[in-house]
Order: sequence, then C-alpha cells, then structure tokens
Amino acid sequence: MSTDTNADADESTSKCGASSTAETGSESEASSTSKCGASSSDSDDSGSKCGASSSSASSSSGSKCGASSSDDDSSSNEQEVGAKVDDFDADPGQLTAVGLGPGHAEGMTERAKTALLEADHIVGYTTYIELIPDEITEQADEIYDTPMCGEVSRTEESIDRTLAGNDVAIVGSGDPNVYALAGLALEILESKGATASMVDFDVIPGVPAAQSCAARLGAPLVNDTVSVSLSDHLVPMPEIESRLHSVASESFTITIYNPWSRKRRDNFQKCCEILLTHREEDTPVGIVHGAGREDEQVMITELAELEELGESEIIDMTTTIVVGTEDTYVWDDRMVTPRGYETKYDY
Amino acid sequence: MSTDTNADADESTSKCGASSTAETGSESEASSTSKCGASSSDSDDSGSKCGASSSSASSSSGSKCGASSSDDDSSSNEQEVGAKVDDFDADPGQLTAVGLGPGHAEGMTERAKTALLEADHIVGYTTYIELIPDEITEQADEIYDTPMCGEVSRTEESIDRTLAGNDVAIVGSGDPNVYALAGLALEILESKGATASMVDFDVIPGVPAAQSCAARLGAPLVNDTVSVSLSDHLVPMPEIESRLHSVASESFTITIYNPWSRKRRDNFQKCCEILLTHREEDTPVGIVHGAGREDEQVMITELAELEELGESEIIDMTTTIVVGTEDTYVWDDRMVTPRGYETKYDY
Repeated sequence: MSTDTNADADESTSKCGASSTAETGSESEASSTSKCGASSSDSDDSGSKCGASSSSASSSSGSKCGASSSDDDSSSNEQEVGAKVDDFDADPGQLTAVGLGPGHAEGMTERAKTALLEADHIVGYTTYIELIPDEITEQADEIYDTPMCGEVSRTEESIDRTLAGNDVAIVGSGDPNVYALAGLALEILESKGATASMVDFDVIPGVPAAQSCAARLGAPLVNDTVSVSLSDHLVPMPEIESRLHSVASESFTITIYNPWSRKRRDNFQKCCEILLTHREEDTPVGIVHGAGREDEQVMITELAELEELGESEIIDMTTTIVVGTEDTYVWDDRMVTPRGYETKYDY
Repeated sequence: MSTDTNADADESTSKCGASSTAETGSESEASSTSKCGASSSDSDDSGSKCGASSSSASSSSGSKCGASSSDDDSSSNEQEVGAKVDDFDADPGQLTAVGLGPGHAEGMTERAKTALLEADHIVGYTTYIELIPDEITEQADEIYDTPMCGEVSRTEESIDRTLAGNDVAIVGSGDPNVYALAGLALEILESKGATASMVDFDVIPGVPAAQSCAARLGAPLVNDTVSVSLSDHLVPMPEIESRLHSVASESFTITIYNPWSRKRRDNFQKCCEILLTHREEDTPVGIVHGAGREDEQVMITELAELEELGESEIIDMTTTIVVGTEDTYVWDDRMVTPRGYETKYDY
C-alpha cells in the first residue's frame, strides 16, 4: 500500500468518501482534486473529473492543497508551481520515497522510521501521514499532507520542496514500487529538467498489501505469483483482460488490487468470468478488506462465489483478493498453496 | 527473503558454500543436511543428496542439527523426532512465522521485533538468526539455529518445540509467504495431527526480495508484476517454461528468483531464450546480488546481455533479477516502468 499507489483517479476518488481507516487499507488513495467529500457513487464521477483536472493540478496546483483543503483552483503559492529545476537557486536536498508497510505503525521498518526522522519535510496523503508515530512527525520541520489532492500534484510538491533545498520524504503505505509513486517521482523529476542523482533519490521498501493480506490468510503465496490491478484508469481493460487470461491459465496465485468500484463493476465481473474459464469453481479465494486497519475483514471463499461478493461491503478499493491455484486448499481456516515438499519429502 | 524460502535443496545447498552475507541476500537458504561446507559446485551434488536425505531428516533428524553441526545421521534426541501431536502432554505454545525483511536488521518491522521478543524459542537458519539484533536474541530462552540442516527438519523442530509448550518464532529473511516456510509449517502441522489454531499460528509479513531489489533499481515494479523461481527442485522445468512464456508475452515486469546454480545453467539459459522470444533485446534488466548485504551488487543491463552474465559472479542463488516490459526505460541509472500517468496528466 502506498500513498500514491495506482493514482487511478476513479478508484482513488471513490475512496475519498470512505473512512480514513478504510482508505489506508488499500494500495490506492485519494488522488482527486475535487469532489472528495462526495459519496462513493459521486466520487466516481469526480474520479473522471479528477483524472481530467489533475492535469492542471500537476502543473498548477502543486502547493494548493497544502494551503487549503478546498478544491477550488486558486493558489496561494504559484511561483513554485510547475517550476523547472532552473527556477531553484538552492542546492537540492534529498528526496526519499518511503514505504510505510501495512496500515499500522508497527508495520514500518526501522529504516523507514530513520528516513522519516532525517527528513526536513514529510509529504503524503493525510491518512498515511496519520500512520506515522507522533515522535517522528514532531521532528519534521514541515508536514505537507493533502487530504484531497492527487498524487501527481503532491509528488510535484515534494520534488519542488527538494529542489528548494529541503530533505523530503514522500510517504505511502505498502511499498513505493507497488502501484506506487516511485516511478511518478522519477517521471516528474525528468519533466522538470532535474535528475534522480541531483536529489539523491532513494526508495525505502515496505511490506506490500499482497504480503500483509497473505499473512492474514495463511500461506497462499508461497509459489510463483502475480499481481494484477483491475483499475483501467491507466491501463486499458482489454490489456488487463489479456493479462488475466495469460496468468489464470498457468499455476500462478493471483493477487488482485483495486478490485471494485461502483463505476467499474464490469471490470470485476469480467475478471471473475475470466478466472472461471481457467480455474475450478471451488478454487479457494482469500479476501482481505482494510488489511491491518481497524475495519479489517478477512474471508476465505470459493471462486464461484466471488462475483456476487463484489456488491458486498467486504470488496471495495481497500480490498485485496488472493486467488489460489488448482493446488491451493483451505485447512483450519487457512489458505495453503503447497510448495511441493510433499513430493520430495516424507512427512 | 525467508529462512526457509524455496527450500530447494539444490539451490539452497549451492549457497552453503557461499558467505553468510551472500546467503542472506536471497530468498533461498541452506536446506542441505550434508556437504554444506562444499564448494558451490559440490554443493549442487549435495543439493540432490540434500533433497534425498532431507526426507529422513524431516522424519528423523528434527533435533539433530541443534545437537550437532555435523551431517552424520546420529541423533541425540530421538524421542521428539517425527512426533505426533498426541506425543506431547503440554499445552501447546504459539508458533509464529516471522519475516525479517532484507538482509539487514534495519529492514525488520516493529511487529517482527515484538514477535521475536515475545518468543521463548527462536528457530532459524544461522545466517538469518545472525541478522537479529542481540538485544532480541538475548531475551530468548533458546536460539535453535541450524547451519546445515534443511527447512523441513528445522520447521518440524519449531513445531515440536511449540507442541511441547513453548512460544516459538521461526524466522527467515524477506516474507514468510515468498517461496517460504509459512506453507511448510502448516503442512507439517497437519501431518502431525495438529492444527494451526492449536498453536495459534500467525505470520508476520516482511519486505520481500522483489521489493528490496526494486528499491535499489529505482521504480521497475510499479505496474502489474509476476515472480517466477527458476528452481526446478519443487516445480518441473516444463511448467516453469510455460509460465515464463505466458507472462513474457504480456506486459508484466518479471522478477526472477533463484536464477542460477551450476547444476541448473540450462534453466537460466532457457529462461533467457524464452524472454527473448517475447521481448526486445534492449529490454532493461535489473540485477541485484545480495540485496541489502555487505556484498550487494547492482547492475542494470539489457535482456540480450543477460544469458552470458549467468556465468559471472553477480548472478547466483543470492541474486534477484527484474526484467522490464516494453515500456520500461533506464534514466539516470534508474530503471523506470511508467504507470501511465503521462497519458492522463500533463507534466
């Protein structure tokens, strides 16, 4: 889970109406620059708006959200907005993308804590900033958290602050490499005429949602495995479908991120259909909602039951789903994918 | 990376000859019950022996290794060996599989440290036990580390100690769900007539090698991704080849675990050939040897160059390889797989 994961405005925005704990339970987050108070249904509309308006957000609202949690377009601090590297006189600071791990402070690594303690500024989605222990945030000169703004504008803000001479940590739950901001930070650095070396760009890995969820389910992911996001905001659905067909026909366990939002019911339905064309109806499926959060829910079911659960509370953008292989079985409420020892060892 | 990951005797044993730091750099480990002092080449022979003898190890040498680091078959403590749940009079303790994360103590989560502090006994491969800060190991009543024994016998030992009434933590680097022991523990519990509930079995997730390596490379894994192990000890090579074909033909980044051992040159060669049938010769490939360890090496190269690197020092069982997609590019010594923002946002 990562502050800036997915950055799929539709699903991200769909979570703007959700509770903070629920939001942190997934590897996506509020990327909307508008309508974040909207209900889950409205938020999908704002989701598209979000994708559309985030363009201007990324180029002209880098500092807006810190100045105001409203979604109007006025900016109190425009001189840094859309700034290029040459606009900064200072020696750049260091930019570090920090993965906080699961949605609880105990899931952080020592290295992540150290990186946050060493940062002048900590930038992140409000819900994730709240995961950081006070003794760490109190050490920072500035906390820049944006309850409503998108990952693009926030990431640009973190880069501008770094180019202005501050050591900046941009945080997210999970791992910065899992549907996350590590790549976006590098892309925006390049667009500003800066380099990764210039800001000594570093990534501190964290425990991804797939691992947090697998731990709650037992041992479903001990063999070859794949992660697929059902969000078609940044990847066309036909491509997602093709990927699902290719892996469902092989013995990969499949971790599904961003499984469901009201506007993307069809993606989830299509996914379930594809899985059922390759795997048995009784294939074990693990569902973890809000992993590590107060509202965590865990369910182990069968593939044939998955589609109808899309309409239930347990499956939303904060849910991670683990689909077993033909070898996966359920024992004592645990989901187990054998490694193959039993074919080699006698026990 | 996990103490008992892969448990592929061949590759695991191939690391018995390696340095401790190197060993902890991968998600596999010494599972040999013999010849672990052997050189990398010999160790592959012992690898197969290992696979063969581990059967008896798992059933009759559960406590041997703790008693002796020799590889003879005599046991100083046979009454618990191959024990069933009914052989234990005590109320069972708790069994926790703890992921230590990358090969350095700073990569551990707070939750992992707490679990280790609460354990009466800590069980693990010597190299990983050495990763644990002294202030934690000093708190334990017993440390059971086996420099030479296999994951099956060690896991059984951890279960026997739990059924005997001790709270036991069985540790590994990385995550217990990534080619790891979480499933083996459940399988052996079942074989003993015990249940997971009986020992309150819990899994503490850790940062997997794929995440540790991706962090060192930049942002290669921010989209849909897959993990494939090239070890054919527990999975037949034709199946591995089929999996590689299926994912290489789609836009998955591919993380390759256990890429090379002397006895499995052909697997690596075949893998490179398969990747090249689906991806361009200049596809970026990231190679991380001993991630987070003293002997860490990082290289970013092209797919066409990968096969010949199999014979070089940077690729062994402690190496993790990340193969990019057609969209992955190298910028400022970082490997970047774009999420697709540039198609949605203007920056």
